[in-house]
Amino acid sequence: MKHTQVGIIGAGPAGLLLAQLLHQQGIESVVLENRPRQRVESRQRAGLLEQGTVDRLRQAGAADRLDREGLIHNGVILSFNGKRHRIDLAELTGGSRVTIYAQTEVVKDLIQLRLDSSLPGAGESIVFDAKAVDIQHVDDGEKPVVHYTHNGEAHTLTCDFVAGCDGFHGISRKAIPEALTRVYDKTYPYCWLGILAKVPPSTHELIYAYHERGFALHSMRSPDISRLYVQCDVTDTVDDWPDERIWSELQIRLGTTDWALQEGPILEKTITPMRSFVSEPMQHGRLFLAGDSAHIVPPTGAKGLNMAVADAGQLFDALMRWYRDGSMADLQDYTACCMRRVWRVQEFSNFMTDLFHHNADKSAFDLALQASRFNQLIASQVASAVVAENYVGLGAKRAGESVLT
Amino acid sequence: MKHTQVGIIGAGPAGLLLAQLLHQQGIESVVLENRPRQRVESRQRAGLLEQGTVDRLRQAGAADRLDREGLIHNGVILSFNGKRHRIDLAELTGGSRVTIYAQTEVVKDLIQLRLDSSLPGAGESIVFDAKAVDIQHVDDGEKPVVHYTHNGEAHTLTCDFVAGCDGFHGISRKAIPEALTRVYDKTYPYCWLGILAKVPPSTHELIYAYHERGFALHSMRSPDISRLYVQCDVTDTVDDWPDERIWSELQIRLGTTDWALQEGPILEKTITPMRSFVSEPMQHGRLFLAGDSAHIVPPTGAKGLNMAVADAGQLFDALMRWYRDGSMADLQDYTACCMRRVWRVQEFSNFMTDLFHHNADKSAFDLALQASRFNQLIASQVASAVVAENYVGLGAKRAGESVLT
Repeated sequence: MKHTQVGIIGAGPAGLLLAQLLHQQGIESVVLENRPRQRVESRQRAGLLEQGTVDRLRQAGAADRLDREGLIHNGVILSFNGKRHRIDLAELTGGSRVTIYAQTEVVKDLIQLRLDSSLPGAGESIVFDAKAVDIQHVDDGEKPVVHYTHNGEAHTLTCDFVAGCDGFHGISRKAIPEALTRVYDKTYPYCWLGILAKVPPSTHELIYAYHERGFALHSMRSPDISRLYVQCDVTDTVDDWPDERIWSELQIRLGTTDWALQEGPILEKTITPMRSFVSEPMQHGRLFLAGDSAHIVPPTGAKGLNMAVADAGQLFDALMRWYRDGSMADLQDYTACCMRRVWRVQEFSNFMTDLFHHNADKSAFDLALQASRFNQLIASQVASAVVAENYVGLGAKRAGESVLT
Repeated sequence: MKHTQVGIIGAGPAGLLLAQLLHQQGIESVVLENRPRQRVESRQRAGLLEQGTVDRLRQAGAADRLDREGLIHNGVILSFNGKRHRIDLAELTGGSRVTIYAQTEVVKDLIQLRLDSSLPGAGESIVFDAKAVDIQHVDDGEKPVVHYTHNGEAHTLTCDFVAGCDGFHGISRKAIPEALTRVYDKTYPYCWLGILAKVPPSTHELIYAYHERGFALHSMRSPDISRLYVQCDVTDTVDDWPDERIWSELQIRLGTTDWALQEGPILEKTITPMRSFVSEPMQHGRLFLAGDSAHIVPPTGAKGLNMAVADAGQLFDALMRWYRDGSMADLQDYTACCMRRVWRVQEFSNFMTDLFHHNADKSAFDLALQASRFNQLIASQVASAVVAENYVGLGAKRAGESVLT
């Protein structure tokens, strides 16, 4: 039987960031991660950080490499059947911008910090291959207990609070009684096939493209590595997409005059399903969810990591109010505060997904509306500004209930 | 066999305005209207004029009474389950506003002008009870011919051009070969029940309200007459809506603290179906469609009359280029020019309709997105500005292809 102040389930960005922020304030935590370190550090995820996300990582002392290696983007390029429109993020939001830096690297940086800062003998403050199997006593006045297995043995961890940062498939969300839970859900009739390619990006800024043949996205990981995506069918596997087909579709869907997409060796291919999901509430007694354990967005707009970081930051602030002032007020408001942000981000992610994907089930009328929405971005500066402020993250510039309600 | 320069089918706002604009430039036209004058002048329609619409009516010399009696509105009030948000139209658009003046009155003013300006003996320049039955020779190099019946007798009208301003159920659209036509269509699973009530409006500006029980709208005709609407089922008849039920629903749906809705005698009740419809092209040879004959919008946002006036103005400009310069260029571009505006307005009308109606078929996720869109209007000035510039009419401030494409 081990004890800590905050038991954190899951070593993704939310759990690791929360642990680091607490550590800085002298609050102990244990992070339980059910996969080995090497797997956690190799998963490819999104790589676009809002200003508010960068600020939180700096606050956590986890931004040294990010500040050195991250690519600052002042704009984003939108394309519709070859017609391009640049959204000037900095100009339209009064100076906000985004940073390209892979989630994998954020996770590596936070794990390294965690291992560096562990007290002698406290190596268990992060435990890999630790499979949480049950969470008890979160709402009965007793100390919460997390049961987990590690190296084939059963362990228990008691704590003041449990932070459920174990993703969509984790056990934390299931510890909230179903009768108290409301689920909001949408699946999209297409997927993303993503590649990493060893070729310098053909664009300085991201290109989100609608094409009659489907969505495409040109992103990047570094000056030498491009990250590209094409919309594919939900039944597709990577075997349906030999390299030539991928490049051919990217050339068509991203193509425009006076521009060429450079091709290169494909290092990795993965297929990502598209789903919107919200589970309310994000808390029960002394259990609090953060990140994908409570909500999923489709990847269009790259909000998943940013929401996880915002949740973790919000939970940290609320926990500090308890540990510092003995007030539960912010913890009690945690779900309500998160939900305002979560629904804004859900709506934006849904808007971007609908705008840039081809959905063969749409009526001719709805397809024409889709085109008119793109044309409005070209015609109207305020319409482009709405996209810009959502893209850089409303939270960065406009925190506070009165604005985000 | 009568001859005129422009044969106009339909004495609605589009046809009457076109006739008046042409008359001012010395171009002859004959307006054929299949209903009696009294019925044309008594139909209740929308009553919100964009600045561009007012400008066109002034250009036509048809705005004297409008300028005296029209109510200028600088803002519009949006409500969501009792939470209100005012859109300051003038502030958000750099001074644009809208005018409340009923379509019926616009029609009366234009008919009076037409009758006043008819040359002696040319009383037939507007013919009521004239049922157009066939349009021929619009695309074969011969003079177009309109066949119609009047007082039980068959007549023909030959002309240089035919303007099809005879509404959704008219014959003009059907004169364009089906094989050349593309139709875009959407019906909504609800209707509007509208009333005229003899009671001073309880609000200075319109109130568009979403409520879990359905949409409601508080508008006005004059300082003494209120115009109010409630969402009802598609199967409802006015018999399902006794006066008490109407007022009760209006009180609930429009209600908020510190505000009271005044009730009064109901003068008229009508049910309006909700439909979006676009037929492309809006022209064939020497036939040109304007207004509802080519496109329908749901009434949310009150764009139908404004689109009809914009079409008529566009057609007038193109016809004058022909009669003055002998150039068909603007007539050839007529559909393309109209379509940019039509699709923007379709998208806005669809947005407003979706935002303020309750659709029981929506998923919990989509209902939550609907609420988040309303909350965004409160949180974001640029989001409100997008609604404002669409509401006052983009055409007024930003004509021209480069902007509206």
